[in-house]
Amino acid sequence: MKQITLKEVASLLKEHDKFKILTHSYPDGDTLGCAYALAFAMRKLGKKANVAVDGRLPSKFDYLVKHYVEQDFVPEYIVSVDVAARNLLGDSVMEGVDHIDLCIDHHATNTLEADNVYVDPHAAAAAESIWRVIELLELEPDEDIANAIYTGISTDTGCFCYSNTTARTHMIAAKVMPFCDWHRINYIHFVLKTRAKLKIERMILDTMGYFHDGAVAVIYTTLDMCERLGTGDDEMEGLASIPGQIEGVKMGITMREKEGGVFKISVRTNDGIDAAKFCARFGGGGHPGAAGCSIEGDLETVRAKLVEAAEDFLG
Amino acid sequence: MKQITLKEVASLLKEHDKFKILTHSYPDGDTLGCAYALAFAMRKLGKKANVAVDGRLPSKFDYLVKHYVEQDFVPEYIVSVDVAARNLLGDSVMEGVDHIDLCIDHHATNTLEADNVYVDPHAAAAAESIWRVIELLELEPDEDIANAIYTGISTDTGCFCYSNTTARTHMIAAKVMPFCDWHRINYIHFVLKTRAKLKIERMILDTMGYFHDGAVAVIYTTLDMCERLGTGDDEMEGLASIPGQIEGVKMGITMREKEGGVFKISVRTNDGIDAAKFCARFGGGGHPGAAGCSIEGDLETVRAKLVEAAEDFLG
Repeated sequence: MKQITLKEVASLLKEHDKFKILTHSYPDGDTLGCAYALAFAMRKLGKKANVAVDGRLPSKFDYLVKHYVEQDFVPEYIVSVDVAARNLLGDSVMEGVDHIDLCIDHHATNTLEADNVYVDPHAAAAAESIWRVIELLELEPDEDIANAIYTGISTDTGCFCYSNTTARTHMIAAKVMPFCDWHRINYIHFVLKTRAKLKIERMILDTMGYFHDGAVAVIYTTLDMCERLGTGDDEMEGLASIPGQIEGVKMGITMREKEGGVFKISVRTNDGIDAAKFCARFGGGGHPGAAGCSIEGDLETVRAKLVEAAEDFLG
Repeated sequence: MKQITLKEVASLLKEHDKFKILTHSYPDGDTLGCAYALAFAMRKLGKKANVAVDGRLPSKFDYLVKHYVEQDFVPEYIVSVDVAARNLLGDSVMEGVDHIDLCIDHHATNTLEADNVYVDPHAAAAAESIWRVIELLELEPDEDIANAIYTGISTDTGCFCYSNTTARTHMIAAKVMPFCDWHRINYIHFVLKTRAKLKIERMILDTMGYFHDGAVAVIYTTLDMCERLGTGDDEMEGLASIPGQIEGVKMGITMREKEGGVFKISVRTNDGIDAAKFCARFGGGGHPGAAGCSIEGDLETVRAKLVEAAEDFLG
């Protein structure tokens, strides 16, 4: 384990030729954006590079692989991108991998074991660091690289809205925009909704409960609701932000019933309330503004537990 | 009427000392952001400057006037910002004004009569031009100027999401962010929802109708619905974007019943469908992607008219 600089990252990439790039499971725009940007960049330098994704690439990211064809080679250098811990790597991604040579990430909590580690917690997205490496390598962006970088930074910042956004994030956006289909990317990730998604949104609004003088808002979905609407995990994305958006709410809690009598809990907080600390009470964790945990039990019991804990936590 | 350059705008501002800055009625983030940024900039140069707003400043913009105190002087130079036409200026704004000396705008359709006109249709927000003038005047941004400029560009681009956003928009954001409370501004304009707003959103989803194989989606509010929920015009903002976000929808139509048996119609389009051209059929107008009109009649009749026209228009 060695903490290295971005220049050293660039040197290591220059020195090697056959890359396998690892993404985290349930891949999001940042891990995928990093991986494809890096793969396209390495290929542009005449090297070989493949991206390992756990399971099927979610179809909304199809545009990232428009010009991507899996290459046939034995990898000699393993790079992980946006992966904060070992258990976030799916088994299929780790196939044939016995250790990680280089870890590029932006999670302050990173614990991934790798020979060389570069973590920039000030980067809104790990894709910011990938972009900076590409600049150090003096590579001109092309459509593929620009689409991937823009995807990483826009999705990890909620289209430049979240508090992790920095002036640097905007500067990088300005640099890649002329090369990429950023408006289509925004449309896919921030505008487009399926009818099913709209139905579940409408239904979840009916479950809204306010507690603690409106400082706590709780919404939920049950397996039964999802079955009735025919909605899957894809439609659930973004629901967790709903209760925390409401005026006066300090803690917005979203409960999603999963198989086996377990609720997956997402907590979003305002006004400096520490969501990660709250979720730690239930064995969970995350960021100060957004965290999660799992709680076993039936709807009413789990909700009562959460509300009681939230009231106690907010004081 | 003389079309001038941005350098000439800067010169004219330097040459004069007592400014009245005119905003358009139903003021939005761009017209207000421009006006206060310009007023603070002029005051920083030791000049006098007041902003004229029609009616009460919407409370969500209170942070723009934290350090703004009306000055007592007789204006000698009248500047309009983000005002595309004479009829968009409220009567109270025009009080004591017989002509406009300088018009700074970004609407390609600008028809406002003024001695000097600067229109940059490539600017996502008129605030981009105001920022560039401030740079030409070699003024360092402060919190007030930065808050105002960020408000103009972020609100006119839907937080850097709409197609009018450019690399320049991001560059300007990067420059003003270090000086301003951009995260609070994002929260106010792009996150925060009142409970009343959430209720009307929930109710309007129930009115969703799909037509023309799902290419047309229509939602509506009636006076009766608003009365039942106790919602006003403030809560109506943003509703118009809902039907156009749905997968497969080319034309999203929002109908809002107003007093006097009239529906205010908002049309949002995808895939290059011209909303302004469509609304022109009903005497309305606007931008290619977002336009509006008014139609008299009862709910069912107006909706049928719109659907028929939409089906005909899409072919």
